[in-house]
Amino acid sequence: MFFRTNHLQFDAKPERPDPVFAKMLQEPLGGQWGEISVMMTYLFQGWNCRGPAKYKDMIMDIGTEEIAHVEMLATMIARLLETSPVETQEDAAKNSAVAAVLGGARVEDAILAGMNPQHAIVSGSGAMPSDSVGYPWNAKYTIASGNLLADFRFNVTAESQGRLQVSRLFNLTEDPGVKKMLAYMIARDTMHQNQWLAAIQELEADGLEETPCPSNFPQSMEDQRVSYQFWNCSGGTESAEGRWASGTTPDGKGQFEYLAEPKPMTDDMGMLGQVDPRLYGTPAMPVPKDAKK
Amino acid sequence: MFFRTNHLQFDAKPERPDPVFAKMLQEPLGGQWGEISVMMTYLFQGWNCRGPAKYKDMIMDIGTEEIAHVEMLATMIARLLETSPVETQEDAAKNSAVAAVLGGARVEDAILAGMNPQHAIVSGSGAMPSDSVGYPWNAKYTIASGNLLADFRFNVTAESQGRLQVSRLFNLTEDPGVKKMLAYMIARDTMHQNQWLAAIQELEADGLEETPCPSNFPQSMEDQRVSYQFWNCSGGTESAEGRWASGTTPDGKGQFEYLAEPKPMTDDMGMLGQVDPRLYGTPAMPVPKDAKK
Amino acid sequence: MFFRTNHLQFDAKPERPDPVFAKMLQEPLGGQWGEISVMMTYLFQGWNCRGPAKYKDMIMDIGTEEIAHVEMLATMIARLLETSPVETQEDAAKNSAVAAVLGGARVEDAILAGMNPQHAIVSGSGAMPSDSVGYPWNAKYTIASGNLLADFRFNVTAESQGRLQVSRLFNLTEDPGVKKMLAYMIARDTMHQNQWLAAIQELEADGLEETPCPSNFPQSMEDQRVSYQFWNCSGGTESAEGRWASGTTPDGKGQFEYLAEPKPMTDDMGMLGQVDPRLYGTPAMPVPKDAKK
Amino acid sequence: MFFRTNHLQFDAKPERPDPVFAKMLQEPLGGQWGEISVMMTYLFQGWNCRGPAKYKDMIMDIGTEEIAHVEMLATMIARLLETSPVETQEDAAKNSAVAAVLGGARVEDAILAGMNPQHAIVSGSGAMPSDSVGYPWNAKYTIASGNLLADFRFNVTAESQGRLQVSRLFNLTEDPGVKKMLAYMIARDTMHQNQWLAAIQELEADGLEETPCPSNFPQSMEDQRVSYQFWNCSGGTESAEGRWASGTTPDGKGQFEYLAEPKPMTDDMGMLGQVDPRLYGTPAMPVPKDAKK
Amino acid sequence: MFFRTNHLQFDAKPERPDPVFAKMLQEPLGGQWGEISVMMTYLFQGWNCRGPAKYKDMIMDIGTEEIAHVEMLATMIARLLETSPVETQEDAAKNSAVAAVLGGARVEDAILAGMNPQHAIVSGSGAMPSDSVGYPWNAKYTIASGNLLADFRFNVTAESQGRLQVSRLFNLTEDPGVKKMLAYMIARDTMHQNQWLAAIQELEADGLEETPCPSNFPQSMEDQRVSYQFWNCSGGTESAEGRWASGTTPDGKGQFEYLAEPKPMTDDMGMLGQVDPRLYGTPAMPVPKDAKK
Amino acid sequence: MFFRTNHLQFDAKPERPDPVFAKMLQEPLGGQWGEISVMMTYLFQGWNCRGPAKYKDMIMDIGTEEIAHVEMLATMIARLLETSPVETQEDAAKNSAVAAVLGGARVEDAILAGMNPQHAIVSGSGAMPSDSVGYPWNAKYTIASGNLLADFRFNVTAESQGRLQVSRLFNLTEDPGVKKMLAYMIARDTMHQNQWLAAIQELEADGLEETPCPSNFPQSMEDQRVSYQFWNCSGGTESAEGRWASGTTPDGKGQFEYLAEPKPMTDDMGMLGQVDPRLYGTPAMPVPKDAKK
Repeated sequence: MFFRTNHLQFDAKPERPDPVFAKMLQEPLGGQWGEISVMMTYLFQGWNCRGPAKYKDMIMDIGTEEIAHVEMLATMIARLLETSPVETQEDAAKNSAVAAVLGGARVEDAILAGMNPQHAIVSGSGAMPSDSVGYPWNAKYTIASGNLLADFRFNVTAESQGRLQVSRLFNLTEDPGVKKMLAYMIARDTMHQNQWLAAIQELEADGLEETPCPSNFPQSMEDQRVSYQFWNCSGGTESAEGRWASGTTPDGKGQFEYLAEPKPMTDDMGMLGQVDPRLYGTPAMPVPKDAKK
Repeated sequence: MFFRTNHLQFDAKPERPDPVFAKMLQEPLGGQWGEISVMMTYLFQGWNCRGPAKYKDMIMDIGTEEIAHVEMLATMIARLLETSPVETQEDAAKNSAVAAVLGGARVEDAILAGMNPQHAIVSGSGAMPSDSVGYPWNAKYTIASGNLLADFRFNVTAESQGRLQVSRLFNLTEDPGVKKMLAYMIARDTMHQNQWLAAIQELEADGLEETPCPSNFPQSMEDQRVSYQFWNCSGGTESAEGRWASGTTPDGKGQFEYLAEPKPMTDDMGMLGQVDPRLYGTPAMPVPKDAKK
Repeated sequence: MFFRTNHLQFDAKPERPDPVFAKMLQEPLGGQWGEISVMMTYLFQGWNCRGPAKYKDMIMDIGTEEIAHVEMLATMIARLLETSPVETQEDAAKNSAVAAVLGGARVEDAILAGMNPQHAIVSGSGAMPSDSVGYPWNAKYTIASGNLLADFRFNVTAESQGRLQVSRLFNLTEDPGVKKMLAYMIARDTMHQNQWLAAIQELEADGLEETPCPSNFPQSMEDQRVSYQFWNCSGGTESAEGRWASGTTPDGKGQFEYLAEPKPMTDDMGMLGQVDPRLYGTPAMPVPKDAKK
Repeated sequence: MFFRTNHLQFDAKPERPDPVFAKMLQEPLGGQWGEISVMMTYLFQGWNCRGPAKYKDMIMDIGTEEIAHVEMLATMIARLLETSPVETQEDAAKNSAVAAVLGGARVEDAILAGMNPQHAIVSGSGAMPSDSVGYPWNAKYTIASGNLLADFRFNVTAESQGRLQVSRLFNLTEDPGVKKMLAYMIARDTMHQNQWLAAIQELEADGLEETPCPSNFPQSMEDQRVSYQFWNCSGGTESAEGRWASGTTPDGKGQFEYLAEPKPMTDDMGMLGQVDPRLYGTPAMPVPKDAKK
Repeated sequence: MFFRTNHLQFDAKPERPDPVFAKMLQEPLGGQWGEISVMMTYLFQGWNCRGPAKYKDMIMDIGTEEIAHVEMLATMIARLLETSPVETQEDAAKNSAVAAVLGGARVEDAILAGMNPQHAIVSGSGAMPSDSVGYPWNAKYTIASGNLLADFRFNVTAESQGRLQVSRLFNLTEDPGVKKMLAYMIARDTMHQNQWLAAIQELEADGLEETPCPSNFPQSMEDQRVSYQFWNCSGGTESAEGRWASGTTPDGKGQFEYLAEPKPMTDDMGMLGQVDPRLYGTPAMPVPKDAKK
Repeated sequence: MFFRTNHLQFDAKPERPDPVFAKMLQEPLGGQWGEISVMMTYLFQGWNCRGPAKYKDMIMDIGTEEIAHVEMLATMIARLLETSPVETQEDAAKNSAVAAVLGGARVEDAILAGMNPQHAIVSGSGAMPSDSVGYPWNAKYTIASGNLLADFRFNVTAESQGRLQVSRLFNLTEDPGVKKMLAYMIARDTMHQNQWLAAIQELEADGLEETPCPSNFPQSMEDQRVSYQFWNCSGGTESAEGRWASGTTPDGKGQFEYLAEPKPMTDDMGMLGQVDPRLYGTPAMPVPKDAKK
């Protein structure tokens, strides 16, 4: 079970409100590659883990840490939305767009400047579990397959896409308080990329998983004629130049073969048979109307 | 632009109908890690590619091949749904569940035995772009970030999750025709895992990307105090035993540090300020009713 | 504004409960082509109508009638779910699947036989605004474009898909009460297909719309070289045999032309330029790390 | 930030596997009124809270507890899915449906008996953040408006719907281990219904909120002619008999008035004007074709 | 069944177009707490009602009234979108943002000023069944559980969240025609909050329902050790100060107990067993490769 | 299976970047009536086709062509997003909104001017498979029912809605390169409307389908009393004036009949019976508490 301390993991204080950036910062909170996604992904991977205890414990460590990242972002967004209608009303009247960006604008001006209207109408200046265009987070972003190699590869991806998005956002704000928190999160993503890459090495060292994943499916049962063939299905020939076109394969088990002009391996043209006429699909020949029911 | 030959890439002929397995086989067609997902992901990565031409060409090769995989699965599912209401009506009367599994059952019996009712009501014995519980495919399964390392890592994941699911399905059918096609698809996933792993090596060899991704964000700007720290946020101590807890990090740039008893790094308790009273959020103190508007 | 009488439009009484068919009957209630879809589509088309009053009134007539169809289906489904746990407990013990289909089974047996578990857990034996696999209705099924020809064509489609699905369901039940209601709904769909086809004729007679839709976009501004060309992009040659390959086009404004071997009309290969390096997309050439920010 | 102990909050051990009940138990985990919903709802209400500290602290207490409920359910489901393919293979051959329900069946038999196929194909015998028909959890189930009265009323609802669903599930299993955990969760829901009802009393006692909510919007600005009128828009007259038709209103500020035959309060018939012809909506009169662009 | 009069329930005439506010006004139309939600919720609660007739009739009364509210909002939005491209073209050229807000702007300018582009491209100046960020309404917003207390509590919530959102919007427009309609809708929400609160009192007076809901589940079967315990799972101690921490519980059946330092009630650590190796989950120990299939 | 040439089907080169128009152009790419929808719809209709070969071949021709349309739009959008941060920085400082529209603005300015922030944060200046408000494409936009008449009617609709949207967009840009491509796409939609109308004629000529669809359901089994009746359910009388109110019906099988004052055809008032008390629905009479379990 879980407990919470009163303190955030790290500072989440913007220098001033910025409702438009608050909208953008929803992406790493409630977007596909945001903190809710990694929190839920790691927690479910941990709860479902049937592998050795060190993996389960490690996964739960990071899953629990991610709840704190959700917390930091939610807090930051709520603070970026603290528009103060009174003090800056005059400035806002002059140039609403600029005022909104600088913070301190009236809500109505901020919406015109690009604020998410649901931050006013729905959440009342609070963070929402949705992304930068207002699309709600959904559980398809949670990946937990029971196979740790497949899942750790996803986790490396998630930390890569996440770090990429936060790095982009780092460049789209000038607020030192926001930048400070983002720099912290980028550093944690550096750690977590390394952590999952290390975990993959550990899985292999423990003899539990290897490429191709899942490694316990016997390769003798796959159609080995095509296990290491590159099929050149588009017009260009540049694809012959890469590491993927020749040489030993990364799993160490084969040699890449380049098919410059691939052909279908069957004479099956996908023609279908007829089915139950009571479903009223269009058949190959007209059906007598009195033949039914 | 695209052209199509009349032949499938490979055989997609079941020995006999099996509407329940047809439902399950929707997962690698229209599920999160199914063929539509990789088809769309690779096509969008290719169309959006701004990297060297060999990458764009290679991505388009595989993206184009995946359309053929969608085609094979759709054809197989349509054939598994070819229930023939007349011949087997008597057998079906005896034991509808068994008849449905063996194929040849009436539609109504097949639904009772676990067929997806939409295969009858909506698609009329045709394949659907949805998964094994009938949830429709959606474009959030398409990943194309503009950063090839982040995306190739996703691709490795997709081929791992995909191969995992098809391997499971391989064990859940006895139909030799179905098994033959799945064995082909598993082999292609073996190739594609290797292909993307090789592509990551190529990116690194070309000096374009490396860990941590995105590699062009200067690490000097991240909060380097925590770039290589493991935070033990859950109860267990087993997480200290892994490759992720000590030693050189996989990116070769740091040393893992294990924080056995991590603490918040701030005294920020996340308390929020007051906002525009015209949004009627509950404030810290009662608001006089005549103070508004 | 709207008023309701106490009576249904037509009988909605099954002879006996059938929780599995209740699940299937969700499709014409809350599915993509179900009654909620046409109700909402017609109401929004009517409310948004800027055309002549006879169209708006006609649309509102049918939109209002459809609310009654939703009502009939919801009532029928709620009655099909009236499992009675006491009386048939003994029979159910003998053969739960059969009992569930015949009606009168215990809830737990009905779920095993294929009942939607949410009919028990979520709605407590009530109808739900979702389809036959439990996917919730959503407003993307509502079409109202402001152009009546485009929308009436959709309406013809909706009444066709809807009549198709109800006809299929008619064959999947033996209950006379259910069949009676479905026969009524199929007849209304016959009317409504005819109604929308007549409305399209009326639009053309009034000089408001014609093919190609929207007819007010001047065809002189489209790329008329390809306005009536058939492009044979797949392998077969059978497509040359149809009405679409030669002769006067249905809009009476052109002649079909069959391109047996179509070619790209441009030398544009879709190569992209470079963009803001602060977004960390993979560029064509390595970016010096100290060049950013 | 958050920490986790290694122990669950309460026992989550079934006596034996039951993959069909595992499917049903997904409803209180990942369904609309499940534990993920209350976990996320309370956490976001707490993080966004701008009211007095006691409220924020109370909300965070229960939000943190709910993570443990998610954990218990996920663990229980994973255990209910522990099919053992070897030992019971013979029994399963005899009667697959019964075997699946009793536990210990082969995966393929369990799917035929009604198991969610994604529990095999996607999660590999693990819990998923989705509901009993496989629909993924989404963040629209998270409610945090900034107004504590509106939100606490939602919370009372959530604990009511949640307790209702778990009570139904309690009756649909005979497994003593499952029943034990559900009895615990039902008791916590009893507490939480009381907790939120008490919190509403506290809000009113503190002078922060009252009916109608939001109480700070001045009622003098609403259209007070209709603030306490009951409109009888459907056929029946039974609605005149209830507490809502006469007497003092619950907010103590008005008297219910019953309109037996309500009429529209306007002569506005909703006719619309014409708009930009470049949008090609169907206008009231034909548009000359050469009038555009 | 249903009938419609030609008149709206109340005036829905803005003084001038305002495409940006039209976007915002989509929230109470097609948002989670908008009029479509209450319309559908009340209609389904009524159709599924198995309680006394006065409840069913009352629910249908308000459900039918809500269709008229959807109608008013749709009409208002369509009118707010009546951009007139000709007259104000010159003013618009000077300052497009201001022109858009004042109304009368060209469509292209209005989009730049924050208009929802789908109001032009998709609906052609018509209302849409989606919310203020364009997310489509879905049926998960419809709640009908079969238990009237659980559902009436939801209804109180819906009228509270709805009134809150409309009150916020009332402050974000200066248009007298819009304000007039919103004032009407706020008043109806006042009524409906009172109506549902009265209905809850009636349910209790009739002996049909009480707290905890569902009241027919025997409390003797819940785990009564924790039925009235407050668990302090987060760091603060302020939660001890509220009405929820001590004294008689609102249901009158217990005494609140405050657990300052709660502990897990089990030694269950959630470790899982091994499952079918043919699902290729990562096991606790390596699986020999030739052991499968 | 499929192959790709390196060239686009037609030019997709804008004269200059325009990130706001890029957002709008997402509608015909990833919106409900966009190119992904027709691509997927036609491909699935073709793969599932059980009718004569000429239909299957024709459907696959157009389905394959549509992939190229997706490609053109994706390329165009990626090029419209090619903001160049360096050269125009000075101009942008002067007037960011204008600069963004003209192209060449900095990303941060473009977002303020109305660019979709996900085009920066998520796709890094690439196209996305989502619509103009960022809602992801989903497979419910794919229609393939097995009945070719029902589906071809949908296809006519899709090409009408699609041509309508592209025509609107044609008016919302001044860029000659964009207009050139849109003029090409509008022309192809002209062809495709004609193609599907011709295909409907062919189906009828072949004796395969006719109105009412599905034509193989015997009309003698529908409730023929109401097969050609117009029900006037709303207040107006204008609906009596149209083609749909009198005369021979378009299917040539009946005469329209106008019911000016329609009445319910049943005395069924939709009252429901009682169900299993273990589901805790509110019954018509109080349930004794000790009667359960």
